[in-house]
Amino acid sequence: MTAATPRRRGRPSRTESADAPAARDRILEAAREEFSERGYDKTSVRGIAKAAGVDSALVHHYFGTKEQVFEAAISIAVAPALGAPKAVEEGPLDSVGERLTRFFFGIWETPATRTPLLAIVRSAVNNETAAAVFRRIIAAQLLRRIAGRLDVPDAEIRAELAAAQLVGIAMLRYIIRIDPLASADPEQIIARVAPVVQAHLTGP
Amino acid sequence: MTAATPRRRGRPSRTESADAPAARDRILEAAREEFSERGYDKTSVRGIAKAAGVDSALVHHYFGTKEQVFEAAISIAVAPALGAPKAVEEGPLDSVGERLTRFFFGIWETPATRTPLLAIVRSAVNNETAAAVFRRIIAAQLLRRIAGRLDVPDAEIRAELAAAQLVGIAMLRYIIRIDPLASADPEQIIARVAPVVQAHLTGP
Repeated sequence: MTAATPRRRGRPSRTESADAPAARDRILEAAREEFSERGYDKTSVRGIAKAAGVDSALVHHYFGTKEQVFEAAISIAVAPALGAPKAVEEGPLDSVGERLTRFFFGIWETPATRTPLLAIVRSAVNNETAAAVFRRIIAAQLLRRIAGRLDVPDAEIRAELAAAQLVGIAMLRYIIRIDPLASADPEQIIARVAPVVQAHLTGP
Repeated sequence: MTAATPRRRGRPSRTESADAPAARDRILEAAREEFSERGYDKTSVRGIAKAAGVDSALVHHYFGTKEQVFEAAISIAVAPALGAPKAVEEGPLDSVGERLTRFFFGIWETPATRTPLLAIVRSAVNNETAAAVFRRIIAAQLLRRIAGRLDVPDAEIRAELAAAQLVGIAMLRYIIRIDPLASADPEQIIARVAPVVQAHLTGP
């Protein structure tokens, strides 16, 4: 399984990409668009290379397999989402529910961050490789850091149930678009959901 | 749009299918399996007909378009899930959260009902036609009936946020399978989630 091979070589970060070659950035940009539009299954390294105007070999050279390109493209796309633990870490624990909920709506209400998030969810639901990437990024990097802030034995389950409330809202509001939830004012939803997230994380 | 054409003719119910021709049942069974395995996009009326051992024309005769076959197959598959409003209607309102949560785990923990539910979610996330079917069945038949039981002005949003909590758990536990949520004892989750569902439906 390629999932077990090291991927750090090709994984970009904001500081890295600043001095990385232009071709590498073009590949990542093309990958993000291809995965968003077609989903994981229908996207090919060849298609990404073509969209970026480079040879497939260069894509392999920078990133390795299709899974590794996907993970690299997604890591950048969810970089704003990975700021969520900060929203938990900074500020008092008794208002963490509202900060996390507002953060969630911030990234989903903004088209630039919503598009790659849609691609991730769509890919992860239908493809086990994409699901594994989702688990590594969301679970390992995001949820575990949030859980680390909570000083309770079942912190990880609590963080996951809070995440489930928010993921379910993403599903019904942004993906399947069930009304009235899909067209409700975010503030109306936040008022109801922030206390639920808070209770999951710090309640009895 | 085919979504606007009447579909009642082909929509099966438990009483109808009892006296319907065997071919009709075979088509529905084949459709359920094809949609579950391949998802909406990759399933064709031809493939369903072949799996059922009938001519494509017969599939069209009984059900109409691919969307209508999908809706008919799904309606049967989610028939157990449509029992949920009963779980709300029967029994006191102050324990509706626990009844609904237990009902949800009942259908997701049973492989026979989990498989078609997975097919519905996977199809609805990636295909607008399947999403429209999901909206008609889940939103119109299930959520609105639950909301009808609640005597508050924002009953529909409340029912949808309760559903979002459960849908998010389905995503993280059964579809993307993030641990520890994926392997936790259902009773441990129910103990945390039932009060949340209750609060969404009848809380302040």
